[in-house]
Amino acid sequence: MGQSMCSHLIKAGYSMTVYSRTPSKCAALVEKGAVLADSPRKVAESSDVVFTIVGFPEDVQQVIAGTDGVLAGLKPEGIVVDMTTSKPSLAQELAEKAARQNCAAVDAPVSGGDVGAREARLAIFCGGDKAAFDAVRPLLCCMGREDTIHYMGPPGLGQHTKMTNQILISTNIIGVTEGLLYAYKAGLDVEATLKAVSGGAAGSWSVTNYGPRILKRDFKPGFFVEHFIKDMRIALEEANKMGLALPGLALAQQLYVALKAQGDGDAGIHGLTLALERLNNIQLGEYTKQ
Amino acid sequence: MGQSMCSHLIKAGYSMTVYSRTPSKCAALVEKGAVLADSPRKVAESSDVVFTIVGFPEDVQQVIAGTDGVLAGLKPEGIVVDMTTSKPSLAQELAEKAARQNCAAVDAPVSGGDVGAREARLAIFCGGDKAAFDAVRPLLCCMGREDTIHYMGPPGLGQHTKMTNQILISTNIIGVTEGLLYAYKAGLDVEATLKAVSGGAAGSWSVTNYGPRILKRDFKPGFFVEHFIKDMRIALEEANKMGLALPGLALAQQLYVALKAQGDGDAGIHGLTLALERLNNIQLGEYTKQ
Repeated sequence: MGQSMCSHLIKAGYSMTVYSRTPSKCAALVEKGAVLADSPRKVAESSDVVFTIVGFPEDVQQVIAGTDGVLAGLKPEGIVVDMTTSKPSLAQELAEKAARQNCAAVDAPVSGGDVGAREARLAIFCGGDKAAFDAVRPLLCCMGREDTIHYMGPPGLGQHTKMTNQILISTNIIGVTEGLLYAYKAGLDVEATLKAVSGGAAGSWSVTNYGPRILKRDFKPGFFVEHFIKDMRIALEEANKMGLALPGLALAQQLYVALKAQGDGDAGIHGLTLALERLNNIQLGEYTKQ
Repeated sequence: MGQSMCSHLIKAGYSMTVYSRTPSKCAALVEKGAVLADSPRKVAESSDVVFTIVGFPEDVQQVIAGTDGVLAGLKPEGIVVDMTTSKPSLAQELAEKAARQNCAAVDAPVSGGDVGAREARLAIFCGGDKAAFDAVRPLLCCMGREDTIHYMGPPGLGQHTKMTNQILISTNIIGVTEGLLYAYKAGLDVEATLKAVSGGAAGSWSVTNYGPRILKRDFKPGFFVEHFIKDMRIALEEANKMGLALPGLALAQQLYVALKAQGDGDAGIHGLTLALERLNNIQLGEYTKQ
């Protein structure tokens, strides 16, 4: 995703310095004119704004606040924009740390996946200092659209919005999967059923986009089970801190933990179908891992 | 709903005989030219096609197969179309019973609620003899649209399709509710969050239609909690017969049973918010029962 997002910025005329823990991922960008650096600190030393997108909160911590991290190199008035889906509390900590050196940190997790990144139509949920957000907004507009870039408030609120997004998706995918299994066991034409129900009150992005892929048994990501488990774990931890019980989210997370235990942590999140098939000892069709 | 659906048929030029257990509900239809009968049997005696829409499977059983029911009066080659959301197994029994007297029964539950009925854009999921379906299709087209009327196969498959529809809705509404509560507790502007997440992968009919009503604390039905509990109970019973475990549906049904126990069986199904608010001892705003 980082590669697509970065290439949009190059195309818009910005000069870029890039770093990846897997340098080969930078080759295509270097070809387009980006300069390769050998640490996040080095990227920051030659940049006004630094974007990060990695896997887990520990990675965010290291890449931004580690010894060779972004904040070690960022000049005063520099801005770091973390686009990883990560902990709201970490976003707050990093914003405070950045402020202490007269910089700013914006949390800006995205929704829309690989495709959204490639086609520059990501939804971006932003938290942080409003002036910093305003400063980076034109850059974000290279990755999303005017109406899909949302300023949500102080540091962490971008992450909290993304958590809300994931809570909605997690329970909905249970319904898509259970609906398809029910239809199959009831002897319905599952494809016709999917079509019949998707236009009305049962309709959703997940039914429309994942339903057909599930029926084709195409469980490639899209969005990795392993990353979704991380997102739901963060949401449950945050909810627990708030004193908020979310039984639907908890169930979803447990089913995904089972799916990973079954060996499908690298499937797309619509692979939840596999976990519920195994639970019920049935199969909608042939599953070929790709 | 029956009243709206019937008035579309009158408008299309069909002559109608009507019956309701609450005769006052027929007054508007009688004014439009319908003839009032004092039993379902009497309706059937003067009709080629009889439509039924009632509350629970026991009501369907009585109104179609009872002493003064539709089948007691229906002439050979008559068709009874039950539009109640009811048991697939009952739909099969009634179709067999109808066939024994050279009649046909079509199960044709609808989706789209009060509004869909009024605006003649119901989704209709049909099971039963194909020739009987073809015969009543023009009549159904007065209540829905060409592309929202679905023939799903033999008797009971209309009901099974509706169950699939309800399974999808039930888990999705948990997500909508939990997402809103999370956003609220996290200190987000809930309305802005709803807007930010509803356009992407978390989007659904329920988010778009119920989200704003929940924020206005307008929990009027729409679609009654009590009827939804019945639908989910049927779906769980059917799944149990099939040897199919559906943990998401089971959780949803239990939360709705709690909502009814709390005194809100007559709320709309988006009232699930109330149950999860009480569970968490919080409130998004003021709730005025209307």
